[in-house]
This record gives sequence, structure tokens and C-alpha cells, in this order.
Amino acid sequence: MKTIKAFAPATVANVSCGFDILGFALEGMGDWVTVTERESPGLEVISIQGDGGKLPYDSDKNTCTVAIQAMIDELGINPGIEIQLEKGLPLGSGMGSSAASAVAALVAANELLGNPFQKNELLPFAIAAEKVACGAGHADNVGPSLLGGFVLIRDYHLLDVIKLPVPEELHCVLLHPHYQLNTADSRSVLRDQIPLRHATIQSGNVAGLVTGLFQGDFDLISRSLRDVIAEPYRAVLIPGFYEVREAIKAAGALGMGISGSGPTLFVLCKGSAPIPGIITAAQEVFESIGLGVDAYHSAINTRGAHIL
Amino acid sequence: MKTIKAFAPATVANVSCGFDILGFALEGMGDWVTVTERESPGLEVISIQGDGGKLPYDSDKNTCTVAIQAMIDELGINPGIEIQLEKGLPLGSGMGSSAASAVAALVAANELLGNPFQKNELLPFAIAAEKVACGAGHADNVGPSLLGGFVLIRDYHLLDVIKLPVPEELHCVLLHPHYQLNTADSRSVLRDQIPLRHATIQSGNVAGLVTGLFQGDFDLISRSLRDVIAEPYRAVLIPGFYEVREAIKAAGALGMGISGSGPTLFVLCKGSAPIPGIITAAQEVFESIGLGVDAYHSAINTRGAHIL
Repeated sequence: MKTIKAFAPATVANVSCGFDILGFALEGMGDWVTVTERESPGLEVISIQGDGGKLPYDSDKNTCTVAIQAMIDELGINPGIEIQLEKGLPLGSGMGSSAASAVAALVAANELLGNPFQKNELLPFAIAAEKVACGAGHADNVGPSLLGGFVLIRDYHLLDVIKLPVPEELHCVLLHPHYQLNTADSRSVLRDQIPLRHATIQSGNVAGLVTGLFQGDFDLISRSLRDVIAEPYRAVLIPGFYEVREAIKAAGALGMGISGSGPTLFVLCKGSAPIPGIITAAQEVFESIGLGVDAYHSAINTRGAHIL
Repeated sequence: MKTIKAFAPATVANVSCGFDILGFALEGMGDWVTVTERESPGLEVISIQGDGGKLPYDSDKNTCTVAIQAMIDELGINPGIEIQLEKGLPLGSGMGSSAASAVAALVAANELLGNPFQKNELLPFAIAAEKVACGAGHADNVGPSLLGGFVLIRDYHLLDVIKLPVPEELHCVLLHPHYQLNTADSRSVLRDQIPLRHATIQSGNVAGLVTGLFQGDFDLISRSLRDVIAEPYRAVLIPGFYEVREAIKAAGALGMGISGSGPTLFVLCKGSAPIPGIITAAQEVFESIGLGVDAYHSAINTRGAHIL
């Protein structure tokens, strides 16, 4: 029977001032999904590795099967497909774990079915899976996981998703403190109403960040990495947030933000030289408040999900 | 005695989703300022043309002298300068009239004094004049009038002003309805607090507009020309606003917004071919509600203020 394996990268959503509209993909971290044809119709998850037994096999709840089901519903077919999921990402860490699984499943199944869809046409099916996994159909993880690079979600409703350029020397450090953050808490602290002047500040910064990406202007990227809408409310849920930010900037980082709804933090920097210093500086702060932290270094993945 | 004459272009501020952070300069419309050395120290406005007698000669109130005074205060000098102002712009129309006068005065006086400042260093002095003229030190008219092109004001406080690229075929039509709009009214209708989701929509659109300018993607520019923060409240003060927008889009325009705080409207389009149809369509709507309208066609001025 035909077997296809695909990889989809981890992602950072809510990129600081790009709250809810900007995400990017990470190199060397992500999930793998293998799909295999079988004769009897229907989708079945037959193995999940690396999740510590936490993810559901139920095809109404697993993001892989929900995503593939949305795709085959659109095609009006009912093939038999067995799914094997290998998690390379910690669950609920704010690194786009559910998005990577859904995207890898879609890219693999699309290939298995003879590529009835272009890559970017898979996005609505991945969003359908995000609705089941997260309760909200956000595209700022699935967009960059699918397409790679920095991705702007100009309009969720119309799925106007635009790939932005990535300066070659842009690198990322992910800091995953050993600390549980309830996503519901992280959502509930946001304000429904915000001051008009904060919206203007946010607009200026997101325009600056996009300009910095196009111009390869690292100083401008650094000046623009400032979120006045979500971060001030979410940062208080992450012990050491402001101290870590100060420390990593002193170590040469361009800036820092909360990845997704946290608790993972992303740090951007120019080139790989400052990375060891950034990691050491962050570890020292977290240790000083009794928290362990996993640190990952990654370039920006510009390729997105792909067949292996 | 040495005499220098400078031109500064009209400008559109509050470019739709770029409310408070984006402006652009117009070709072929603006103000002229001539400065002449004299022996006795002090600044004096000796003539103003084209203002219908409305602008003040008082050097504490005229934007030309306020701007030049801020510049010479910074230099710690007190030269004698006579100023002649020729207005090419209607006052209070939302085309950056006060900004153009201040910028032309600064560029001329800077040349007269041997160019002690780089062009972009003149910005704080122009903003000082805007404070006197408008009660608020906005940079989104003086920035593009000085520098030309599309200008992003990332941060007012830090004066982080960035010139954006302008696609060659981008054209503008200005529609100035014969209608008085009180700037105070136009400000007072704005909300102090806005929904978080409106801020997110605005961010997505401004990121889309900036991306469209960099990529020369006119469709993206068109999709992004949508202001959900200021326009819904201000449009109701401009008779025919939504009907005009529908008509100009049907005539091939990319989109439309309120220039500054109105009542002038700016229309963007690709190439000059759709311009006659756009103007006719807008005139028909305004005529149907009993309003005359002046229409101007302009390319985007990418040069900014300059010596003649």
C-alpha cells in the first residue's frame, strides 16, 4: 500500500505587535505524519508517539483526522487512510503543536490522493482542525507551518494570507520555561476594549516590523517588536518576563515576545553569534526565580511543510 | 540680499487603515515660500498670497515663522529673515495646508543659512509649527511633505519616520466637496476606546497596505484600504461618502479614504486611465445631493520639498 510521510514545522504566532495577524515558522522543530492507504474506507489514527499518551485517537478529536476529513469532505470522497503521528513538539507550549500535526497530515494526505489541492488551498482544512483543537479557527500558526517564513494573516474571514520576506540573518531562540500556563487564563486577561491610542501605536509598530522584514533593517525590527495590546496583560502571567527581556536585550537580542499564548517566549536576533549569550542570560534569570527552562535555537524556516 | 524659494507638496494624512501613522505627498500641488536675508534680526512675514486674507502675519501664529523660529532657536542664532508665502492649497481642506507652508519655509531657510541641518532633521521644527496651527504635533502631513512618497510615522514620540516605496503606477485623485467640515467635530466623533478586534483588523490592513507598497501589489493595496477605527465615525460627517466610494470603485479605483480629517477624499488608482471615469462618477454622486466638488489628479510626489 502507498505510504507518504510529511513534516510540518513548529511556529510562533502573535509575533509581538503582530498580535493575531503575524506568525513565523521554525527550522528543525515540528511534527511528522505518515499516511497509508488501506482498503476499507474511513480515517483511523493507528499510532501517536511523543505525546506522553495525551492526544486523542478519536477521529472527531484528533487534529490530523479532523483536518483530513475536512479535505475529503470538500472532495466528496471517502478513502481509507491510516495515520501515524510523531510529535516533535511539546503540547500546549505555544509553539503551534496542534497546527503542525494538522498541517503535516494535510500535506501527506494531499500527496497520497494525487495532489488535488495546491498547498495554500489546504489552509481552510487546517483551520477547521484548529477550531477543534483550540476552540478558535486562528490561521497564524497553520499559515506559517504550511507556507514557511513570516506570514501575514491580513483577514481571517477571507483567509487573505500573505508570505513576507525573511532577512537571511534573522534567527530565533525559543525559551520554554518549566511552568504551566492555562490557555484560558491567557485569553481571559485580554481586554475587549482598548484605548484608541494603543491601536495606533500597535499599527505603527506592525507597519515598522513589516517594513523591517522587507528592508532587512534589523534596527527597525528591533524598535518595532513592541506589543501594547496583549503583552502587558499576558506578561504578568509569566514569571520573570520583564527581567528576561532586559537580560536578552543586554545580550544583543533584537527583542522578545510571547509565542502564541505562552508560556514559551521567542527571542529574535541578528546572526547566530549572540545566541549562546542570550540563552545563558535567560537561563540565569529563570534560575534565579526557581524555574528551569528549555532553550532552542532555530533559524526561520522558509520552506514550510513538505513531503519527506 | 540672498533670496531662496522652496516648494513643499500637499499631503494626504490618515491614509485609511494607516490612521495617524501613514501619509503621502502629492505631485503638482503645494505651497511656495521665499525667504530673503535682511540686516535687522528677527523673522517677518511680509506677504501672503492665495489665502483669501485668512492667515496670520503674527510671527507667533504663522506656521512659517513658528517653524523657522524653532530651527534658529536650536541653532542659537537670531538672523534677519523676510518671508513671502504663496498658498497653492485651500485652507482647512485636509490636504496638509499648514504643513506644506511650514515645510517650505524650513527648507528655504535651511538653505539660506547654509544647510546646518539634513532634510530629515527639519522634522521636529515642522512639528512645532503643526502644534501651533492644529493644536497637535502630528507628523503625518509634515513627514511626507518634507520627504516625499509614502511615509510611515512608526512612533510620534521618538520621531521614527520611515519612507516607504511607491509603486510607479500609483495615482491619486483628490475630491474636495464644497462643504465645510469643522475639524473639532471631526476629532470629537472619534472613540477613546475601541474593540480589540477592530485594532486587530486595522493592524492586518496596515500590514497589508505596507506589503502591497513594497510588492507593487495593487490588488493587495485595494483589499487593505479599509479603516475600521476612524472612518466609520467620520464618514457620517461627509454627505455621500459611501455612495461616492461605491461609484469610484465601480469606475476602477483601488479604494478611497478621508484625507486628514476631511472633508477632502483621496482616491487611489492604478495608472492614469481610470481617472476621468473616477472623477465623473464622484461628481455625479455629489451633484445628486446638491454638492459641487473640485477634483484634482496627482501622481505620488516622491521627491518631497525642494529648493526652486
